[in-house]
Amino acid sequence: MKDLISMALCYQNGSLKILDQSKLPAAEIWETCETPEQMHLAIRELKVRGAPLIGIAAVLLLALLTEKNIALAEIHDAAAYLMRARPTASNLMFCINRFMKSLASSRAAAIATAETIFLEDIALCQAIAGNGLNFIQDGDAVMTHCNSGGLATAGLGTALGVIKAAFAAGKNIHVYVNETRPLLQGARLTAWELEQANIPFTLICDNMAASIMQQQKIKSIFVGADRIAANGDFANKIGTYNLAVLAHYHAIPFYACAPYTTVDNSCVSGAEIIIEERSPEEITGITSNLGHIYWSPRNCPVFNPAFDITPAHLVSAYILDKGIYTCAQEFALNFSK
Amino acid sequence: MKDLISMALCYQNGSLKILDQSKLPAAEIWETCETPEQMHLAIRELKVRGAPLIGIAAVLLLALLTEKNIALAEIHDAAAYLMRARPTASNLMFCINRFMKSLASSRAAAIATAETIFLEDIALCQAIAGNGLNFIQDGDAVMTHCNSGGLATAGLGTALGVIKAAFAAGKNIHVYVNETRPLLQGARLTAWELEQANIPFTLICDNMAASIMQQQKIKSIFVGADRIAANGDFANKIGTYNLAVLAHYHAIPFYACAPYTTVDNSCVSGAEIIIEERSPEEITGITSNLGHIYWSPRNCPVFNPAFDITPAHLVSAYILDKGIYTCAQEFALNFSK
Repeated sequence: MKDLISMALCYQNGSLKILDQSKLPAAEIWETCETPEQMHLAIRELKVRGAPLIGIAAVLLLALLTEKNIALAEIHDAAAYLMRARPTASNLMFCINRFMKSLASSRAAAIATAETIFLEDIALCQAIAGNGLNFIQDGDAVMTHCNSGGLATAGLGTALGVIKAAFAAGKNIHVYVNETRPLLQGARLTAWELEQANIPFTLICDNMAASIMQQQKIKSIFVGADRIAANGDFANKIGTYNLAVLAHYHAIPFYACAPYTTVDNSCVSGAEIIIEERSPEEITGITSNLGHIYWSPRNCPVFNPAFDITPAHLVSAYILDKGIYTCAQEFALNFSK
Repeated sequence: MKDLISMALCYQNGSLKILDQSKLPAAEIWETCETPEQMHLAIRELKVRGAPLIGIAAVLLLALLTEKNIALAEIHDAAAYLMRARPTASNLMFCINRFMKSLASSRAAAIATAETIFLEDIALCQAIAGNGLNFIQDGDAVMTHCNSGGLATAGLGTALGVIKAAFAAGKNIHVYVNETRPLLQGARLTAWELEQANIPFTLICDNMAASIMQQQKIKSIFVGADRIAANGDFANKIGTYNLAVLAHYHAIPFYACAPYTTVDNSCVSGAEIIIEERSPEEITGITSNLGHIYWSPRNCPVFNPAFDITPAHLVSAYILDKGIYTCAQEFALNFSK
């Protein structure tokens, strides 16, 4: 397989490394991933995260096994195991299925498919950015949630890719970044990416977004997606639905940005999307190398859904690689995988 | 002055102690407060917090100075200094003004006023709870934000007081508690109070509230207030306006609970309320005895308003000690300090 290098993935000389995103921005640690168990855990622990990226990372791991001439039955088991790492994200299943279909022809075909999936994602990000670019005007302040940038894809990103492309086009913009509790992907990852790109931004707590919208500071909101149902409902990081309701109330355009690999036509509506629930410790305190430090009472009952569902009617437009769909009907009619 | 003891304040044998709420629930540490500087700092650092409580605490400190026969000019300076500790909360100014007016008659009158303010707050909480009780039915799940309980008042609490009273009346209820970033008064204080009271609850991140409302789990929402303007707009902990918009969208009743000392008739509308902005470090990481631990990039630009403004039209009812006002007009017409 040829060398494939992105902001958070590196396949080089037959070795697959991931940037451990759970340690960012404090430390930039690259970790070698050789086994399905390592990749499964890396996804579970959000060392690799972002719907497009986990699909690509899982496929590169399978390609590695394929190159090493691991038995096909083992690769099949690994594929099934990796799919279970993050049930909500569509791209993971989509990419693995595509890879496994190629593997049915030959190992060489499967490896070529893995390369294609990686390189295609870069092009998909470019297409999304190109389609979304003109939704941002010079002087706009925009808002985003979680991280949908270069750390979430092999390319420029999805929602954050649109924002970065607008800045790169010379537009004077300002980005309000929701910290994105509980795992702070906004505060840790998006802030880090924006700082690296020299894009002016302000970090806020998630519960401040409404107040900032009330002050008419926000022109538009861009978010990524983990799975888009056939009717346009979509799952994304918890807090996205919150923003969609606030955007609706304040009449602020709300855009979902994603590659076609995020669309799951087998899923009729958002009601069918499985929402992953995660550990209470993500909310009750912080976990350090010296154990868990509680700030809430110990054994405090917690509900910790990792995603929420935004209904299609709250989306102003879907900005996909294939085009822009300005309502759910248009999305449902025009889009096919 | 007679002994005055509440969940978080203790005036006994001429000594004023505060429960350091910034350390809860990990440690219950009572700190002696003897000087205006100590009390000012305790309010700034949220060791003493909750709009009603900081008014009472500041007055007890002034009463202490009065008992010690400190010069009147010094007490006047202390009063002015304490008022500046938390500009947004109305009760602080109201209580201090009331105390200083008594002091103009005599030291004994002022001390009696301090006692009255403390004991009256207990009665105000009871009245609020009595008025609010029937807004909660057996089997209801309710939501609250920040902490408006026994830690925020000298009595049962305001919004949390209503919830506690409903539970005490034998109603089978469940409370969803927003953690309330950045300082986590929900996760630390409300969770602690509910646990102590054996009231079933679930802790969530602020950005999960919308998703839980979408699932029709929430019957009603109760919040406290830091300052209510004459037109019914009110300031409360950041994130309150967020909840009010979500409640409106999901057609969930949204109640503001407060004693009359929170109403500021000199303030025409929410636009006139000064919003305190706090340090970026509250958002960029956590501060320990070993220094600040960043999770965001260092020097990350931050906006950290401590409060937001909820417009009157989003309030289903004001539950005050004097009665229930089911619309802003009714509130504005009937209410006078």
